[in-house]
Amino acid sequence: MRKFTIQHTADAGLEKAVADKIDNLTKPKGSLGRLEELALQIGLIQRSLCPMLHHPCNILFAADHGIVEEGVSLSPKEITWQQIGNILRGGAGINYLCRQHGFELLVVDAGVDYDFPPARGILDMKIRKGTRNFLYGDAMTSEEMNRCIEYGAQCVDRIYAQGCNIVSFGEMGIANTSASALWMHFFTGIPLRQCVGAGSGLDSAGVERKYQILRRAADNFSGLHGVEEILCRFGGYEMMMAVGGMLRAAELRLVILVDGFIMTNCLLAASRLYPAVTDYAVFGHQGDESGHRLLLEYLHAKPLLCLGLRLGEGSGAVCAYPIVDSAVRMMNEMDTFSNASITKYF
Amino acid sequence: MRKFTIQHTADAGLEKAVADKIDNLTKPKGSLGRLEELALQIGLIQRSLCPMLHHPCNILFAADHGIVEEGVSLSPKEITWQQIGNILRGGAGINYLCRQHGFELLVVDAGVDYDFPPARGILDMKIRKGTRNFLYGDAMTSEEMNRCIEYGAQCVDRIYAQGCNIVSFGEMGIANTSASALWMHFFTGIPLRQCVGAGSGLDSAGVERKYQILRRAADNFSGLHGVEEILCRFGGYEMMMAVGGMLRAAELRLVILVDGFIMTNCLLAASRLYPAVTDYAVFGHQGDESGHRLLLEYLHAKPLLCLGLRLGEGSGAVCAYPIVDSAVRMMNEMDTFSNASITKYF
Repeated sequence: MRKFTIQHTADAGLEKAVADKIDNLTKPKGSLGRLEELALQIGLIQRSLCPMLHHPCNILFAADHGIVEEGVSLSPKEITWQQIGNILRGGAGINYLCRQHGFELLVVDAGVDYDFPPARGILDMKIRKGTRNFLYGDAMTSEEMNRCIEYGAQCVDRIYAQGCNIVSFGEMGIANTSASALWMHFFTGIPLRQCVGAGSGLDSAGVERKYQILRRAADNFSGLHGVEEILCRFGGYEMMMAVGGMLRAAELRLVILVDGFIMTNCLLAASRLYPAVTDYAVFGHQGDESGHRLLLEYLHAKPLLCLGLRLGEGSGAVCAYPIVDSAVRMMNEMDTFSNASITKYF
Repeated sequence: MRKFTIQHTADAGLEKAVADKIDNLTKPKGSLGRLEELALQIGLIQRSLCPMLHHPCNILFAADHGIVEEGVSLSPKEITWQQIGNILRGGAGINYLCRQHGFELLVVDAGVDYDFPPARGILDMKIRKGTRNFLYGDAMTSEEMNRCIEYGAQCVDRIYAQGCNIVSFGEMGIANTSASALWMHFFTGIPLRQCVGAGSGLDSAGVERKYQILRRAADNFSGLHGVEEILCRFGGYEMMMAVGGMLRAAELRLVILVDGFIMTNCLLAASRLYPAVTDYAVFGHQGDESGHRLLLEYLHAKPLLCLGLRLGEGSGAVCAYPIVDSAVRMMNEMDTFSNASITKYF
């Protein structure tokens, strides 16, 4: 697998300088709460007292999953390509959110079981028409995994070359909450049942059936396994490309906006390869998928929003962007006590 | 007091039509969570399947409080006028947030103990140079209260004439968490201790001293009292103008974005006069003042954000605006299943 050089962002001197600057802005100390924490994190990422956000981009990876044939999802498999078509036409949830917040939307075919007509605006990085069914064996080969990591990194190179310094990742792939639940289970040790949720809208009987299938898939993979074995066993192509994208983003010191359950699992996976990647992560949204709260707690992550979204596509991350922007603007646009001739009373 | 005509927004037929429209957008049913709830609320307010937001405005009322002389606040009283000067120069937190989200900022002198030079961009509606000390008697007269309600309504008329259909209210007034704590206590019956918090940053000894003073103020006002008596006893001029503004906004069917602890108390007060006003309220932010969570629970209100802000000025409400905008854009910009030729699978 491609190697990345990812530095921790900690820097005691800079941290003190950022904190001093924040405490001299015209507001009661600490009164901008999470915005102050974000400003510190982004200051450390960008190594600057005046951080800036440029050319935000949402990279949406799409792929199909072999496990879908076991009936783990409410949605039929063709929804993946149909919804990608909708996204390419501009009519989906992620489209208007990207327009609203000035995001470029880069749609990548990581492995959809469909031949998109040429020139539809989708970036063709198709590994295969969907992963293999992980109930009985590996979803992808090691070579496929490596290509996914490489392609994901290339997508980030592409937007970085355009000036992007904040990126979110989104996904579209029927059955990818199943793949994510198994990554979560094997990477964290949290009992599988707590990792399995309703996906796009299963009722409780459906969730139970999904759990039973994933339970068998987990049992068929018993024993000790390395990180890459877990990744290949269950991972979707879209998830693996997001892992590669996150690693490259951290290597380039971009801010990574993390979306919901699936993308949080991708960050978890990335952190198993390179722990420092979490320094670059801003958790946008706690989604409605039941395992997401647990996973965020496990990562000691505090999401910016909790709006009950479970759309995927990067929607929760993009929704949270204005808050990140507010934090950065605080550092550049607020006056100081001394400039403003205000009594500093603490 | 001026009379308002405020209608409840409930409309079963329209509610069903909005819900049908939302459920036919290209996303799993319910997957946009709170955005869907907001879209319904705003659809009912605007009586439309295609709601729109125009000319958002934050009206910031400023005033001083007589109770400040008892030492209830960490900040000295002159911070009120000094910070208003900073706001008029554009260097405060609320300024950059308003710029970020395209808000007009209307700053109103409701009763600051300072003579602002003319032509500084502040709207002069000064009732008096601060309220009276409510430890010993009424903070304001009934005539002053009526003028506040009228002036607040006039401010909303002003922005309505410019095309505004969504308004937030902010405040600046050293000691107004004290006044708000007493409104909360007398309007809800929640024990006073749970209504008293740190304001702009008191330590625990400071909070205890503040509580003891407010305890005496409450004891001096024992017995049964009508709504208007409670308002006059403790209310600040800036708070009372916000009450008037909220009532007029609801009368004109504007969306009211509610800020933190103080503004939530103003909405509570407004709802004691006209219960239907809450139909128009979107709660932007759960602030860091300790009583705010309790008050929101009391009102069955679910704030959109919880970012630990305690700045006031309308900052939490303005920060939440993009989420409201996302809800409205959902109704106008997403395609339907039938248009997009996507299998509707539920």
